[in-house]
Amino acid sequence: MKKIGVALLGLGVVGGGTYRILTAQREYIRQNDGIDIEIKCVLEKNLERCKELGVDLSIVSTDIDRVVNDPEISVVAEFFGGIEPAKTFLIKALEAGKSIVTANKEMFSKNWPELEAAAERGGGGLYFEASCAGGIPIIRTLTDGMQANRVTSLKGIVNGTTNYILSRMSDEGVDYAACLKDAQALGYAEADPTADVEGFDAMYKNSILSSLAYKKRVPVDRIYREGISGIAVEDINYGKELGYTLKLLAVSKNRDGKIEARVHPAFLPSGHPLSSVSGSFNAVYVHGDSVDDIMLYGRGAGALPTGSAIVSDIVFAAGREVHRRFPWELETEVKDEDFATDFSSRYYVRLTVTDEEGTLSKITGVFGRCGISLATVVQKEAVSREVAVIFVTHETRESVMKKALAKIEQLSGVENIAALIRVEE
Amino acid sequence: MKKIGVALLGLGVVGGGTYRILTAQREYIRQNDGIDIEIKCVLEKNLERCKELGVDLSIVSTDIDRVVNDPEISVVAEFFGGIEPAKTFLIKALEAGKSIVTANKEMFSKNWPELEAAAERGGGGLYFEASCAGGIPIIRTLTDGMQANRVTSLKGIVNGTTNYILSRMSDEGVDYAACLKDAQALGYAEADPTADVEGFDAMYKNSILSSLAYKKRVPVDRIYREGISGIAVEDINYGKELGYTLKLLAVSKNRDGKIEARVHPAFLPSGHPLSSVSGSFNAVYVHGDSVDDIMLYGRGAGALPTGSAIVSDIVFAAGREVHRRFPWELETEVKDEDFATDFSSRYYVRLTVTDEEGTLSKITGVFGRCGISLATVVQKEAVSREVAVIFVTHETRESVMKKALAKIEQLSGVENIAALIRVEE
Repeated sequence: MKKIGVALLGLGVVGGGTYRILTAQREYIRQNDGIDIEIKCVLEKNLERCKELGVDLSIVSTDIDRVVNDPEISVVAEFFGGIEPAKTFLIKALEAGKSIVTANKEMFSKNWPELEAAAERGGGGLYFEASCAGGIPIIRTLTDGMQANRVTSLKGIVNGTTNYILSRMSDEGVDYAACLKDAQALGYAEADPTADVEGFDAMYKNSILSSLAYKKRVPVDRIYREGISGIAVEDINYGKELGYTLKLLAVSKNRDGKIEARVHPAFLPSGHPLSSVSGSFNAVYVHGDSVDDIMLYGRGAGALPTGSAIVSDIVFAAGREVHRRFPWELETEVKDEDFATDFSSRYYVRLTVTDEEGTLSKITGVFGRCGISLATVVQKEAVSREVAVIFVTHETRESVMKKALAKIEQLSGVENIAALIRVEE
Repeated sequence: MKKIGVALLGLGVVGGGTYRILTAQREYIRQNDGIDIEIKCVLEKNLERCKELGVDLSIVSTDIDRVVNDPEISVVAEFFGGIEPAKTFLIKALEAGKSIVTANKEMFSKNWPELEAAAERGGGGLYFEASCAGGIPIIRTLTDGMQANRVTSLKGIVNGTTNYILSRMSDEGVDYAACLKDAQALGYAEADPTADVEGFDAMYKNSILSSLAYKKRVPVDRIYREGISGIAVEDINYGKELGYTLKLLAVSKNRDGKIEARVHPAFLPSGHPLSSVSGSFNAVYVHGDSVDDIMLYGRGAGALPTGSAIVSDIVFAAGREVHRRFPWELETEVKDEDFATDFSSRYYVRLTVTDEEGTLSKITGVFGRCGISLATVVQKEAVSREVAVIFVTHETRESVMKKALAKIEQLSGVENIAALIRVEE
């Protein structure tokens, strides 16, 4: 029987869930995986929390050196969140030859190259299944289930908070502010919801997933980001009438060796498997050149689902003699030529126009002269002097779209561009 | 760089797809996984097929001993299908210390214990990702992504042929015979479709998946099996009106340590993620006690999707120093007490009754006296003397249901029991 000593850094929601699973399932994992996992040290200041979980206080510490210097600890799982001290502690652990397991997407996505270098020096492994989409085994699938594939696109609903808010807006017609308030009351959104609703969390995950998918570093700052706080419930409703469902998507594509990565609200055809992923569920949809389309669906957050991913990583790490390396993260330079400067999409545009003759014809004229082909035009019945006109375009370059809209904004009769939402297939 | 010699047994659809992927992606896999996979031998009688694929004829043979005796071959991938000679060849390979990779669900599900024993003797590993649900990484998820979980239920759409037929019946209202004919014309169904439409294929897969899920041998002969050839399009339509979608499901559950496993048509609520899996796609839905619900979706068949799973297994096997064992397969005896003798479900029942007073009351009286509680009763408008009456029950034991129906069949006014379909949640 292989014996593995583990340290848990922090006993918050996911750390506590992991402690519970490792304790309850120790015998089960021994039997099935032939690995005996012993928690040798817990870094946690809050002794009340330790007592609540039933942790033997003799293994509780606040000193990372106790972890680093214990030769019996070979896997260190981190639950602090935030950049520091997580990063410094994990680099220390890696340099001491230990493997690390983390759910910390912000720290990991921003510091993967440094962590990779430390892992390379120490010989341990980096495990981060829990960093993206909670309990869903998307990392294991990308690293150990799709080796025969060049991935060409990836689309994910990877943030439960925004998916909950958009699902409620769609199902009940309630506006963004009210749904956010409910999400906060239910504990689905933080008091300061920025990281979720403005797409930062999804951006970190997109960086990690896309780097794995394309075997190329996709840094956070190369990812276009737009959140859901500007979404009007009427656009969700107009979209529904056109057969679309609105989701906050993490999207990336590799077209002819150029990567484009982005996080933004997007309409999906209502028959798309991602469009029925509702509430706080997550899902990731990947296209590989051998496997074609696959989708993984499940709980993107929560103590036990995320703890499940952490424990899976601990067991997986413990079973390896040699750990997987991610060599592209060691490249010092990110090259401009690997990334698309512009991207192509279909667009949903809602304009507010005054109900005067010829306006629609002038607008479609601008689209036509810019080479933007229209799939759908819907003019809503006027309830006042102002009318909503909705256009769905065929695929066009974003730069061309922006240019056309700048011209359209200047037309007499056009009050404003009320919404611009990308449409994915 | 680790070098791995591979033998391919058979170059049919999936064997050919695997050959193409291994050849085209050799350098890609070298770069990403640090493993150089060389095809050292191909067993294939059809030399035209070998030439078509561009195989160097000097590595083509019909002699398994050439594979078994080549010390440079460490992984043997089998594509013969059927029981023999696949089984004998793979046992030889395992006894010579090689790892095997297979998509052969019938052979594998029926002979796993013998293969396991041979693997135990030789030290190689058993890899069978491609045996269930084509390119979908469900085996990897059950073995290496859910170690923290006790699985309590598993539901899968694991047969593309039947899913294609049921989707067409549902979408177009065409009857079973016509849809089967189309499926045959399109190559989705075999000339003799029995293995697919009568649920044998799904039963083999259920045996493999359930054994992994519950860490207990779930032999093929412990699985209740019922196909789709008796399904009437009107029941699909009546189900739709009630908010249900009909699927051929592989279902298994572990309730209080008793396993029940079955393959049969089942109604699912139309909002269930599995109900939107249509056409030839597959999906598996698993509930684990830590991860909660997860679902994996993708292509269940085809040269490249299944080849993707085969190549993933080859790379995964090549990267392991020690291979995973499945010790429960070595237990010589399957114990009755591990399996449920009866199972519980909700039921959809359609009766044909003559339009005479009091019949409905007599029927509901029988259900009531048997302790079967009804969720829905719908009496269709009479088009002739005969009327369709539909009942959807709450959960009840199958044995109780059968007893009630035997009594109902005897009632005057009841012409026949036209349909009995289980309802899953």
